[in-house]
Amino acid sequence: MTHTVRDKQKLLARVRRIRGQVEAVERALEAEAGCEPVMHLLASTRAAMAGLMAEVVEDHVRTHLVDPEAHPGALNDTAADALVSVVRTYLK
Amino acid sequence: MTHTVRDKQKLLARVRRIRGQVEAVERALEAEAGCEPVMHLLASTRAAMAGLMAEVVEDHVRTHLVDPEAHPGALNDTAADALVSVVRTYLK
Amino acid sequence: MTHTVRDKQKLLARVRRIRGQVEAVERALEAEAGCEPVMHLLASTRAAMAGLMAEVVEDHVRTHLVDPEAHPGALNDTAADALVSVVRTYLK
Amino acid sequence: MTHTVRDKQKLLARVRRIRGQVEAVERALEAEAGCEPVMHLLASTRAAMAGLMAEVVEDHVRTHLVDPEAHPGALNDTAADALVSVVRTYLK
Repeated sequence: MTHTVRDKQKLLARVRRIRGQVEAVERALEAEAGCEPVMHLLASTRAAMAGLMAEVVEDHVRTHLVDPEAHPGALNDTAADALVSVVRTYLK
Repeated sequence: MTHTVRDKQKLLARVRRIRGQVEAVERALEAEAGCEPVMHLLASTRAAMAGLMAEVVEDHVRTHLVDPEAHPGALNDTAADALVSVVRTYLK
Repeated sequence: MTHTVRDKQKLLARVRRIRGQVEAVERALEAEAGCEPVMHLLASTRAAMAGLMAEVVEDHVRTHLVDPEAHPGALNDTAADALVSVVRTYLK
Repeated sequence: MTHTVRDKQKLLARVRRIRGQVEAVERALEAEAGCEPVMHLLASTRAAMAGLMAEVVEDHVRTHLVDPEAHPGALNDTAADALVSVVRTYLK
């Protein structure tokens, strides 16, 4: 990925938060915390993972489908926006 | 959509099958058929809709993100395949 | 389903709206309307179907898991609420 | 959760495997491994999380909606099976 350092830090921050959420699920199961808190923790972890996936898919669409140096202007931005918006809807 | 006539017929056949499934849900509700058959009908309708969405997204990725006449060869096919495969996984 | 007449009418209204949405997808495909409107129509149809499924699952949990005449008070309402809330989150 | 020790160990094994998958995503992002491996790692992590959620929901339905000591036989097993099967379909 030819992401800038800033993008990389943003994605890493997201995945580390997700790791923390998975560890909370693990602690809840170890403590026999009950199904309800575990289900709610899993639901938020899943939402956070969907958010990360949406970021990665968006990066992929915007930076890898077309090599902008070899083919400047070839990516149809309107079509790319529509795709990213639909993928985000499905990943919610 | 610059789909061929054959693609169009294939998509239309899919959406008509989905309409038939939705009508079956309607009849089941009218007949007070019980939650279980309704839930199963809804689950298959949803799977059929996910299949149609995957087809449309794939068409969109392969034919609209880059205008192949203006920018021949600009779409990275490997990257497009990876995207379509991930979207299909999420749409299942 | 031992739903009241009112519940039945509400569910039927939902499924008829969904049928209308599927018919709009069909018309858009017939008119070769483009992938973008089709993807957006499919995304809203899917959301409407998820809403209907959530209603049916909720009815099922509240009225069919336990026969309230044979076993009054047996369904743990707090646990049922937690389940319905998690299912709604996943069906969004 | 009044799970047996064996159930608890099974759920803990699942969540630890998921933690390992999230750590693999983190390492891939740190190594700038590319969007494609990251998307595939995220897709398998999501599938594993859906499997864990399905297990927890199933436990919840079978052991918490009705207190089997206070209300023996009150849970309609056929209705519970139908619910669990639909939830599993949606969690795939």
